[in-house]
Parts: sequence; C-alpha cells; structure tokens
Amino acid sequence: MDYARFFSDDVASFLPSPVREIFRKVDLSAICSFAGGYPDAATFPLREMPELTARVLEKYGSRALQYGATQGVPELRALLAEREGVSPDEVQITTSSQQGIDVCARILLNPGDRVHVQEPTYLGALQSLRAYRAETVALPASLGDARAVPGAKYIYVIPDFSNPSGETLSLPEREALVDFARREDLLIVEDSPYRALRYEGTPLPTLRSLAPERTLYLGSFSKIFAPGFRLGWMVGPPELLGKVYLCKQALDLCPPVFDQYLATEFLASGALDRNLARSVELYRGKRDRMCDLLARYMPEGVRWTHPEGGLFLFVRLPEQIDTVALYDEALSAGVAYVAGSFFYPDGSHRNTMRLNFSFVAPEKMEPGIRLLASLIRNKLSL
Amino acid sequence: MDYARFFSDDVASFLPSPVREIFRKVDLSAICSFAGGYPDAATFPLREMPELTARVLEKYGSRALQYGATQGVPELRALLAEREGVSPDEVQITTSSQQGIDVCARILLNPGDRVHVQEPTYLGALQSLRAYRAETVALPASLGDARAVPGAKYIYVIPDFSNPSGETLSLPEREALVDFARREDLLIVEDSPYRALRYEGTPLPTLRSLAPERTLYLGSFSKIFAPGFRLGWMVGPPELLGKVYLCKQALDLCPPVFDQYLATEFLASGALDRNLARSVELYRGKRDRMCDLLARYMPEGVRWTHPEGGLFLFVRLPEQIDTVALYDEALSAGVAYVAGSFFYPDGSHRNTMRLNFSFVAPEKMEPGIRLLASLIRNKLSL
Repeated sequence: MDYARFFSDDVASFLPSPVREIFRKVDLSAICSFAGGYPDAATFPLREMPELTARVLEKYGSRALQYGATQGVPELRALLAEREGVSPDEVQITTSSQQGIDVCARILLNPGDRVHVQEPTYLGALQSLRAYRAETVALPASLGDARAVPGAKYIYVIPDFSNPSGETLSLPEREALVDFARREDLLIVEDSPYRALRYEGTPLPTLRSLAPERTLYLGSFSKIFAPGFRLGWMVGPPELLGKVYLCKQALDLCPPVFDQYLATEFLASGALDRNLARSVELYRGKRDRMCDLLARYMPEGVRWTHPEGGLFLFVRLPEQIDTVALYDEALSAGVAYVAGSFFYPDGSHRNTMRLNFSFVAPEKMEPGIRLLASLIRNKLSL
Repeated sequence: MDYARFFSDDVASFLPSPVREIFRKVDLSAICSFAGGYPDAATFPLREMPELTARVLEKYGSRALQYGATQGVPELRALLAEREGVSPDEVQITTSSQQGIDVCARILLNPGDRVHVQEPTYLGALQSLRAYRAETVALPASLGDARAVPGAKYIYVIPDFSNPSGETLSLPEREALVDFARREDLLIVEDSPYRALRYEGTPLPTLRSLAPERTLYLGSFSKIFAPGFRLGWMVGPPELLGKVYLCKQALDLCPPVFDQYLATEFLASGALDRNLARSVELYRGKRDRMCDLLARYMPEGVRWTHPEGGLFLFVRLPEQIDTVALYDEALSAGVAYVAGSFFYPDGSHRNTMRLNFSFVAPEKMEPGIRLLASLIRNKLSL
C-alpha cells in the first residue's frame, strides 16, 4: 500500500535528529560518548526518590494520579511563579521544554514565516521550526542598526551556555538583542534549559526580564531534576499563554501529573537547590577536565569555546577536517561526538564539532579526548 | 502591545473545551458531577504505588530518570506488542492517547482536508482536527454504497463504547466501515481508550485487526492504570509510524520515562489485569445504578443509551429542552453534565446530554439524577 498521498505537506520537512539516530545505533555504554546532551546520572536524586514518592502519595493521594489542569498543577505553578518573580497566570507547565519550543512554533508560525536564530543553534529547535515549514535566518552579526528579514515573527535564542556553542550572551549583547526585537517588532523565544548550571561568573538578566512584554521564556526540569520526567515551564504574557493553553488542550490535555507533584515536593523541600549545588560542582569539574585535556592533546590550530556553564563546548578544527566524514571512523574507534554542521541550518561549518562533557564517565574522558585528538592529527598529517 | 499579528493562521481555529472550562470554574467535590471523563480514583493503584516505584528504581535505576527512546522504552513496547499481537516495530508509545490523536492529524492533514467522524464524537478529537483547520464530515449513515467526501483522508472513530454516546459498533458495522475505507482509500484512526472496560457481551475485533494496513490504533493507560501518567500507545503500519516518530522527536523528544517503567512493571507483574478486573466490577455496578436511576426518575420521553462498557451514556430529551441553556441552572442547583451539542461539529442536537457514571461518588448518584430529572420535568411543564 502506498501511503504517500495521505501525508500532510509538513511531513516532507520532518528531519530525523542525527543525535537521536546515533543513540538508536550505538550502545553508549560501550564507547566514549561526547555526543548526547544527557545529564550525568550521578546528578539524579535516586536515593531521594523513595521518600519523595511516598511524600507525594501521602500528601496528594489520588490527585497525583488523576487528570490535572491543562496549565499544570497549581502548587507547581505557584512555586515556579515565585522563583521567576511573576504571577501564576504567567506560568504554563509544559510536557518538556521541547514541547515549549514546539508550541511556540505552532501558535506563531505559518509556512514560509521566518525565525531569526543564532548559528549554530539547538537541533531540536531547527527540527521543530522546519516541521512547520518556517525558514530560519541567522541573527545579524551586528544588531545595532540591523533590520529583521521580511516575514520574521520571532527570535529563537539560547542566551545562557547555548547548545551547541556553550557561549553566553553578554549584557550589552542582550540589550542589543532586545532593542532589535523592539525596533523590528519581533517576539523572543528565550530557551534556557541550562541557566541554573553556571560554573563561574555572575548570572546575567534574562531576556524576559529585559522585555517581558514580548518574551516567551522556556525553562526545563531535565537538567535540575531529571529528564525522565518530561517537564518544563513557560513564562510569558498572559495574552500569549492563553493561546498556548488552548493549543495544549488538543496536544495532550495536561502535563504528567504525578511527575509534577514529584517536582513540586523536590522544589518545595529545598532538595532541588541542594541537588543543584552538587550538580554544579560535578559539572564544573568535568568542564575543567575536558578543557585541560583538549589543551593537552589537541593539535595546533584546534580552537574551542570556554563555557561558563551548561553541558557543551564547541570545537573548531582546521578547515581541511570534515567532521561529518570523520564520524564513522571515530565511532568505530570508540568515540562519539556530534558534527557541528548539524547545528547550522545550511549544513555548513563541517570543520566543527560539539562535545558534551556532562554525560561521559570521568575515567573515559581522557582516553576519549586522546583518541579524538589522534584521529584529527592523522587527518591533518595526510 | 497587540499580539494579533504574531499568531499563526491555525490559532483562529483553536477552541476551548467546554468540559475543561467547567473544571476551571467549579469545585467538583462540592457538586454532583456527571460532566468529566475522569476515572473513579478508587481504581487507581494507590496502595501498590510505593512497591511499584521501589521496584522500578531497583530494577532500572538511573535509566528510569534519564532521557529515553523516542518510540518509548523497549520493555513497554515489547509488552504492548505481545498484548496487541504485533511486532514492537508496530508500536509507538505516546504522551497520552490525546497526543496520538493530535499526531495523526499533524502527519495527515493539510488545512481544508476532511475527516469522516461519528456524530456525536469525542470533543478532544474535534478540537485537534479543527486546530489543523481540517473539516469534519459525518460518516454516511448507510455505508454500503456510500462515497467519501472529496478531500477525505481518514475516518476517526471510537468503535468501543464511544465518547460521548457509549455505543459500540457491531461486527457488521465494523466490516462495512472497513469496506468503505478500502473502497474509498481512506485511513482509519481507531481511538480505543475504553476497550478494556467491557461490562457485558463479547469483545469484537478491532478495526485494526480487520484492516491492519490502513489503521492507526490508539490505546490509553488512563483508564487501566491512571491518567496522571500521561501514557498511551499507537499501533500501525511501520510506514506511518516512521512519520509519527519524526514528528514526536520535535514534539517532546520522548514519552515520560519514569511513568513508562511504572506502566511496564504494573503490566508485567499482572497487577494491571487484576486491577482492571476490579475496575470493571466497580464500573459495571455504577453503570447499572445510573441506568436504574434514570428509569426511576426521568420523565416520559427521555431516552438514553445502554453502554456495554466505557464511562458514558448519552441522553436524548424531548425537543423543547435546551441542555446548553439549562446548564447554568443545573450547576447552581448542584449538578453538572456536558451538553450533547458540544460533541456535534455543527453544535446541533441541543436536546442531548452526556452523562459520566465513572467519576461520581456512589452516594451522590441518586440525588444527582433526581435533581437533573426534576430540572427537566420543570422545563417540560412550562
């Protein structure tokens, strides 16, 4: 049977994630993977879980297992509102922050509409934007007197420790971005799943705090609680959240209720902040270790970012190295990364790669970087 | 700030659910509600939860808290595949069966495409189909030599104990529907969240079993485990599930992982089937009780369906009664229902109502039906 005639026009724009494809094919535990964006399982509150689940069942009983409000359970919304310094009306719980990205695209974009993005940027956002047949256009390098492209609706941006670059927008860059959005009448989708994972320096104001009237802020529990609970949140003007609410009714009725109450109790008890402090320590050490190893092993001409937080750094290799072509060889040798070109809408920058430092076991980091460096050295000597 | 210019064309077709709006306004515990589609909390495995969570944490450890496969965790897919008599390649776990409905619409429908539906039909499906600007058209009453409307892509149908009607398609009706789909080259989206809740009679073959090549079957854990875990599953041809998989990557990366392992263990241990047997007993009693009370209290000229399973029955009142107009009065008096016209795409049949018998506390059922009957009697005597 031929199914082609049944598919919607959007389907032709669905693209598989090269990252997820790697995970389908490879047993990650058998190799040294710098590929995914997985948190270190050591940061998961495994030991606290029995007590946490018991508390949720005792305190909320059958409410924790029943359908819940589309906006999210009121207890969690209230806690997040307090944390974000907004009213609960400005908070919508999402079934993962990926859903937040997707819902923004759904309520804002028609086919052919345009979105300004950082380049490189998060692959899952590119997938979602493309799946609505929107066009992504690089943010102008100098925003001072830049114009938005015709048809632009919003800016999608990860200001803190971006995926994949690891880079953070400075305060002047944030101000310029907000000025640009105001001048050109664009909304801002501020995707900030890593904001709490800062290993050095001072937190900078969110774009939302600089332009609350035009920003949809996306938070995530995946890196501060656990990604196995699919939970994120969205903060924005009630006029926009009202449409998100209607959209979400048809998408999945409500976010996972039991998971929301686990997050509520984890947050309310202070356990989240204690766990977060430990995670920050752990990840700071892993970031430092990876930067040291890169400095020790990488050949001349290789550059990488120094992230102040988050999970990734981005490596720029000499022009003659093609990381897409190198990938199968690296995988056979036992090391995985994500080719940087996947994070550019046009597939350019084939001499770059994203390295994740959060997931890899500490004892695998040195052999992995050494192996990667020797593969690159071999290519350079050809 | 005026946000109107930012919204996608789809947004104008987003409609609030009157059912969910009721829940926003009313404390259900204070009234007698026949409105929602909530399971009875007595069917939730509250007592089993501590042992179940402990087992998941012991058996799967940090895997239960980490990101998972987009298709769902392999353990749960394998169990569902066995139960459905298919291969795991034909199973996709969804973040609720509502997501299954929405994803089918997303991969199949362009604006203006048409979907044949039962009338009345599930409001959440109407919301989702409308949100993609598809047009719903009633299934022809006699399918024998009927033609599909131009632009029809699929049939959306709840063959077992439909929401809201409570009615079940007979075997000849199923065969005629499948013949119609084959003759007119339509796909079938078989939404079957209540199939396991049968209180009398013999299970009939699924549409999927009659036409596996063109059916996407949607199952739900909400009525056999608990809706607070947002979990459903989809069974269909791998060619269609391949697109669902790509769509789901961009929607939410993967279904809730911890919830999936809870469902895995609940299913694998046999606890699900034991719990289901108890739920069927409980709901059979509630259905019988509601039918008895309707017979005892309702005035002449009121008719209702006799559902062999599921959560709902559908009431047809004399033509002069308008259940939309009656609603506020009923709510003030302390009883809630859903006006039947909400389940008709054109808002017709204003003399009908859906009554849910699963959620209401046993001691509230008699006063609620008596109250409803007296409101109707009053209107008839005007």
